[in-house]
Amino acid sequence: MSRTEDEVLDVIEKRRRRPHFKVMDEHITLAHGAGGRSSHVLIETLFGRAFDNPLLAPMADAATVDVKGGRLAFSTDSFVVRPLVFPGGDIGELAVNGTVNDLAMAGARPLALSAAFVLEEGFPVKDLARIAESMAAAAAAAGVPIATGDTKVVERGNADGLYICTSGVGLVRDDANLAAERMQPGDKVLVSGTMGDHGMAIMIARGDLELEVDLRSDTAPLNELVEQLLDAGGDAIRCLRDPTRGGLATVLNELAMTAEVGVVIDEEAVPLRPETNGACEILGIDPLHVANEGKLVAVVAPEAAEELLAVLRAHPLGLESAIVGGVNAEPPGMVLLDTAFGGSRVVDMLAGDPLPRIC
Amino acid sequence: MSRTEDEVLDVIEKRRRRPHFKVMDEHITLAHGAGGRSSHVLIETLFGRAFDNPLLAPMADAATVDVKGGRLAFSTDSFVVRPLVFPGGDIGELAVNGTVNDLAMAGARPLALSAAFVLEEGFPVKDLARIAESMAAAAAAAGVPIATGDTKVVERGNADGLYICTSGVGLVRDDANLAAERMQPGDKVLVSGTMGDHGMAIMIARGDLELEVDLRSDTAPLNELVEQLLDAGGDAIRCLRDPTRGGLATVLNELAMTAEVGVVIDEEAVPLRPETNGACEILGIDPLHVANEGKLVAVVAPEAAEELLAVLRAHPLGLESAIVGGVNAEPPGMVLLDTAFGGSRVVDMLAGDPLPRIC
Repeated sequence: MSRTEDEVLDVIEKRRRRPHFKVMDEHITLAHGAGGRSSHVLIETLFGRAFDNPLLAPMADAATVDVKGGRLAFSTDSFVVRPLVFPGGDIGELAVNGTVNDLAMAGARPLALSAAFVLEEGFPVKDLARIAESMAAAAAAAGVPIATGDTKVVERGNADGLYICTSGVGLVRDDANLAAERMQPGDKVLVSGTMGDHGMAIMIARGDLELEVDLRSDTAPLNELVEQLLDAGGDAIRCLRDPTRGGLATVLNELAMTAEVGVVIDEEAVPLRPETNGACEILGIDPLHVANEGKLVAVVAPEAAEELLAVLRAHPLGLESAIVGGVNAEPPGMVLLDTAFGGSRVVDMLAGDPLPRIC
Repeated sequence: MSRTEDEVLDVIEKRRRRPHFKVMDEHITLAHGAGGRSSHVLIETLFGRAFDNPLLAPMADAATVDVKGGRLAFSTDSFVVRPLVFPGGDIGELAVNGTVNDLAMAGARPLALSAAFVLEEGFPVKDLARIAESMAAAAAAAGVPIATGDTKVVERGNADGLYICTSGVGLVRDDANLAAERMQPGDKVLVSGTMGDHGMAIMIARGDLELEVDLRSDTAPLNELVEQLLDAGGDAIRCLRDPTRGGLATVLNELAMTAEVGVVIDEEAVPLRPETNGACEILGIDPLHVANEGKLVAVVAPEAAEELLAVLRAHPLGLESAIVGGVNAEPPGMVLLDTAFGGSRVVDMLAGDPLPRIC
C-alpha cells in the first residue's frame, strides 16, 4: 500500500468525527442498497466499525493486500438486478464486468474471478445456462478465468430467479499509485463517456415507466482502457473510480470527502445521451445520480489531462470521453456544479432510492 | 500449482466422459443446492463447461492461482442458512468460518476476506449489527481481516432477512502439496471429530421436527488446526477437505472419483454424538450425509497416520479425531462402508435435499 497504517487510521478517525455519518435508521430500507448517502451511513457506521481494520479503511471498490513481491487487489459485489436480461446485457455479464472494473479501478490486472449463485427453486436451467454462457463470454473478453464458485438454492418465491455474487483478485501494477488522497487543487476530472445509461436502461426495461426509449446498458470491462491510461499517465493519474450505484455525483462526493478537497463540475461538459437525459427529466432524476457500468472517472494532474483525454478517446469504450471539471482547495468535501445558466449549485450524494435493484 | 495444465485437462476430460454427470433437470430444485449428486451434475455440466479453464478444473473448495513468489488460494461461498441464529453460532460466524476453512483446506493461510450482503428491506439494523459483530469476532479468532464488502437491498419478502457471500484469499504454504490425485492405496482417512452436528443442530433449531435435543453447530475456524497438521505431516498429507453440505459421504465420493481409488470406511470408527445419531435415526437420514462446519477430513500416508491423529487430538477442535478408514485400489471412484454388523455397503453422495438451507 502506498500509505502507512497511521495515515489510514487517521482517515478512519476523521470519517468517524463527521456528524452526518452518525444518523442510522432502525430498519433496512431500499435506500441502504442504493449506493448513496444511506448506504454510506450503513457501511461506515455499522460494517466499518464492526470490521475495523487498515485494509478495509480506504473503503474503495477493491481492497489492497500486500503479498510477497506485490500488491493484491481484492473485490466483491452482489448483483440483484431486475430484470435479469436487459438491453445491452444481463445479470451475468454485469456481474463479471462489475468485478473486473472494481479491480481495474485499483490499478490491478485481474487474475481470477469467483461466482457464487443463489438460485430460486424452479428457475429454468436453460436460462441459467444462458447466463453462465454470458458470464463466460464476459470473462473471456476481459481475459480473466472464473476460477471458483458456489451454488445455493432457496425456496420458490425468493431471490427473483437468481442473485450472483462475484469476487475477484488481481495484481496491482507496480507503477499504479492510485489513492483519492493524492488529489490536489488544479487536478482535472475526466469521464470516459456518457453518464447514466445503465440505470436508465434498466428502469426502462422494467416497463413500468411507460417510456419507449431506445437505451442500452453500457456494461463493459474497463481493464484494457485502464491499462492504456496507466501506460500513458503513470503517476499523473491520482485515482480512478467506476461511477456505478449513486452515479458520478456520489463518486465525486466520496472522493472530495476522502481527499478533503472541493470538486467543481461543468454541467455542459458532462456527456449525456439525449435519451438518458430525456428519461431523467421525465422521472425527475438527476443523471449525475444514475448508475454506469462501463464508464470510469479519472482524476489526473492538470498537465497530463489533454493527453490522457486523447488516450481515452482512442479506445472504443472511451470515444465520448470528456474533461468535466476540476479540483479546488475549497470547499473541502463538497461537489459544486457550474450550471448551463451560469449559476452554481451543490451536488450531493444520492439520497433515497429512486432506482431500486439496478445492479 | 503442483500439477501441469495437461494433467488438469486430462482430469476434466475424464470427468466429462462419466455418464452420470450428464443427467440434467429442466428446473432448479432444492437438491441442486444440497451439495450432493444434483449439485455436482449442475456444477460439472453447466458451470464447469461454460467457465471451462484450468484454474476451475480441480473443482476443490478453493482455486489456486500462481502469483509472483507464491500460490494464492481463492474461495467463495454464499450463505442462506435458516434460522439466521442457531445454537452454536449464526449466519455471520458460519460465513467467516466457512471461507476460512475453504482456504485452510487448500493449505493456505488466510490473507483477507470479503463480505457481500443481500439484505431484505425491513430487516432490523440491530440484528444486522449483531451479525456483523459476530463476523468480526470470527474473523479476529481466525486472524484474518474483512477487507472489502458490498451491500444490496431487495424488497420485503425476499432474502429471508439476509444472505451473505464471503470470499477469501490466502497464501498457500510452500510445503503444502495437497491434491486428491495424490491419494494412494494404503492411505488412511482421518476425521477431526464427530460428524453431522451442524446439519442436525440447524434442523432441530428450526423447530419443525418437534425434537428436543441439545445440539450445537460445530462451526469453527480450522486454519490453526491445519497449520499444526501441515507442520507435523508435510508431504504425508495427501489432501484435506471440510465435509460441509453433503457430509463425509459426499466428500469421500468426490475424492474417490477424482483420485480413481476406492475408499472404505469403518462404521464403528466414525465419531458420532448420540444426540446427532438419534436425530438422524428418527429422520431416516444417514449422518454421513449431514453437514459439518468445523471438521476436516485428511487423507494421509499410512506411516504418518498415528502421529497425525495425535496432532489432531492435541488441538481443542480435534479432541475426538479418529482414523475412520483407508484407501484401496478397488473399486475406483467408490466409497464402501464396513458396517457394525460385519457387512459392507456402498455409500453414495447425498441424493435429493433432506436438509435444505443449512448453510
